Amino acid sequence: MQKKKVVTIGGGTGSYTVLSGLKKYNLDITAIVSMADDGGSTGRLRDELGVLPPGDIRQCLVALSKESKILRDLFNYRFESGQLKGHSLGNLFLSASEKMTGSFSDGIKNVEKILNIKGHVLPVTNDDVSLHIQLSNNKILKGQNEINHNHDLQEKKIKKIYLEPKANPNPEALKKIKEADLIIIGPGNHYCSVIPNLIVEGIPEAISKSQAKVVYICNLVNKKGHTENFRLQNYVDSINGFFEKPRIDLVIYNKTKPSKELCKKYEVQGEALIKSKENSKNKNYQIKKVDVLSKVEATYSKADSISEIRSLIRHDSDKLAEEILKLISN
Amino acid sequence: MQKKKVVTIGGGTGSYTVLSGLKKYNLDITAIVSMADDGGSTGRLRDELGVLPPGDIRQCLVALSKESKILRDLFNYRFESGQLKGHSLGNLFLSASEKMTGSFSDGIKNVEKILNIKGHVLPVTNDDVSLHIQLSNNKILKGQNEINHNHDLQEKKIKKIYLEPKANPNPEALKKIKEADLIIIGPGNHYCSVIPNLIVEGIPEAISKSQAKVVYICNLVNKKGHTENFRLQNYVDSINGFFEKPRIDLVIYNKTKPSKELCKKYEVQGEALIKSKENSKNKNYQIKKVDVLSKVEATYSKADSISEIRSLIRHDSDKLAEEILKLISN
Repeated sequence: MQKKKVVTIGGGTGSYTVLSGLKKYNLDITAIVSMADDGGSTGRLRDELGVLPPGDIRQCLVALSKESKILRDLFNYRFESGQLKGHSLGNLFLSASEKMTGSFSDGIKNVEKILNIKGHVLPVTNDDVSLHIQLSNNKILKGQNEINHNHDLQEKKIKKIYLEPKANPNPEALKKIKEADLIIIGPGNHYCSVIPNLIVEGIPEAISKSQAKVVYICNLVNKKGHTENFRLQNYVDSINGFFEKPRIDLVIYNKTKPSKELCKKYEVQGEALIKSKENSKNKNYQIKKVDVLSKVEATYSKADSISEIRSLIRHDSDKLAEEILKLISN
Repeated sequence: MQKKKVVTIGGGTGSYTVLSGLKKYNLDITAIVSMADDGGSTGRLRDELGVLPPGDIRQCLVALSKESKILRDLFNYRFESGQLKGHSLGNLFLSASEKMTGSFSDGIKNVEKILNIKGHVLPVTNDDVSLHIQLSNNKILKGQNEINHNHDLQEKKIKKIYLEPKANPNPEALKKIKEADLIIIGPGNHYCSVIPNLIVEGIPEAISKSQAKVVYICNLVNKKGHTENFRLQNYVDSINGFFEKPRIDLVIYNKTKPSKELCKKYEVQGEALIKSKENSKNKNYQIKKVDVLSKVEATYSKADSISEIRSLIRHDSDKLAEEILKLISN
């Protein structure tokens, strides 16, 4: 039997979690990755070397790598002092590979071989773009870094979210979307990781036309000043808004509550678990409320300048993969 | 039949050349590498991260790697702009591996696996040392970088050459020297790459005691203000001076003249080919005058800040390996 073709669409950490679980199954996997990142190590490399953003690509490559733990750990290693502080070795590796080959795509393909990855990792676009948001007062926020740190960004205040300059879709990504059996959107930072894929002209159109089942893995926690007070339905509406007509077939929603301690940590930061009283009745999509919560608290390198804004409440890779597999075998 | 055990002793570029040729034969190879480098990318990493010098180790690892050309090229890739300018990716890789494992030796062993190398690469010492030279006027030159750029350094002016603090020999290196069938010293920067191995207490003693045949591969060109006007015999005497009694059994000396153009380039810099009218008669060592000259002119990355002082007149890896093999099969 031919392997099922699964395409993930997202950014770094969220896709890492999904792919780490999927890797263990006999699937044809493609990770399509946002190119809007311009913060931390990635932002510095873009500025100083003129490379495309390696950070999210690195995470997906490491997730799909069949190489030794040593090599995967080294790719994620971050330097802790001097001028290199905050750079992850894998980001430097990808940037060197891009500079050496003269093309980001070829650079990634080199690293795919070195990391012996299962499947492929594709940038959603090969263009050098910056994420922009035009607010209802016409103010424009430029760059993912600026947007990420703006805490007064609500859906109703967003007039337009776009890439500058206009991005051409990666033809390889279009092909994989077309051929997919299952397309997984998210989880991830809603405006900075997930949506930047859907504003590349041609990508939502390809998803609309594809015969694939489209699954949205709903985030666990709302982001303060971004998706504050979002319910499950708001996420679905926001994403469906990029398609000609609603395209999400199914949502995976975590029903397990994290520990009270963890929830308190988040509440202090003004962030809360995403709520859903909805069920699938009268909906044009199905809701699967399941336990996909990780019991292990995430840890980060001190040198990761953006680690504090990464989630401590996490999806569990294996539980997610199990739920996803059920969707394909049905 | 058991594989012949060959140990090379040197620094970066010289050992790279020897090892690249030897790799193609069925030998048990160990590269013992000087730890005195503190210039360029290596010097910055030592200063900023507190790591041991990766540069020479990297070159030997790449030479012995059985991995794809892509990976080897990436390890030697140097960044050309920004704060990373001049850093080679392989140096960053080794430093990350050292920091991650907490030990330079373990860090190297990780990279040996990743690069799938034939044999082993061993630092001559695991201590963090600096090369010092005391001149006859008692002035002290500190660090390989300062010594390398001093152009008034003649053998007769050198009172003492030593490491600070005193270095302990790497026990693994001592073991390999003891068991060796053949020990190859050089080629390489005489005071900055070759001799820094012989001033680690225990190393010359181990070489003296070893049953191995000891071969010296003589440099091709004298270094201005260092080994200016040295003849073959001066190199041999200088090296033999570190042993209780003369230990070099054989010298490989290149008899082929490079092109006039290349020689002129060197003459402009005040450097000249090493001369030898000597033959083996009345010598306690044998001289093999053979063609071991590379016909291919070396090229370097613009980002390599020390490339201008690296040799354009080079040994040929394959020709050297052929001559070395003859010594073992005899």
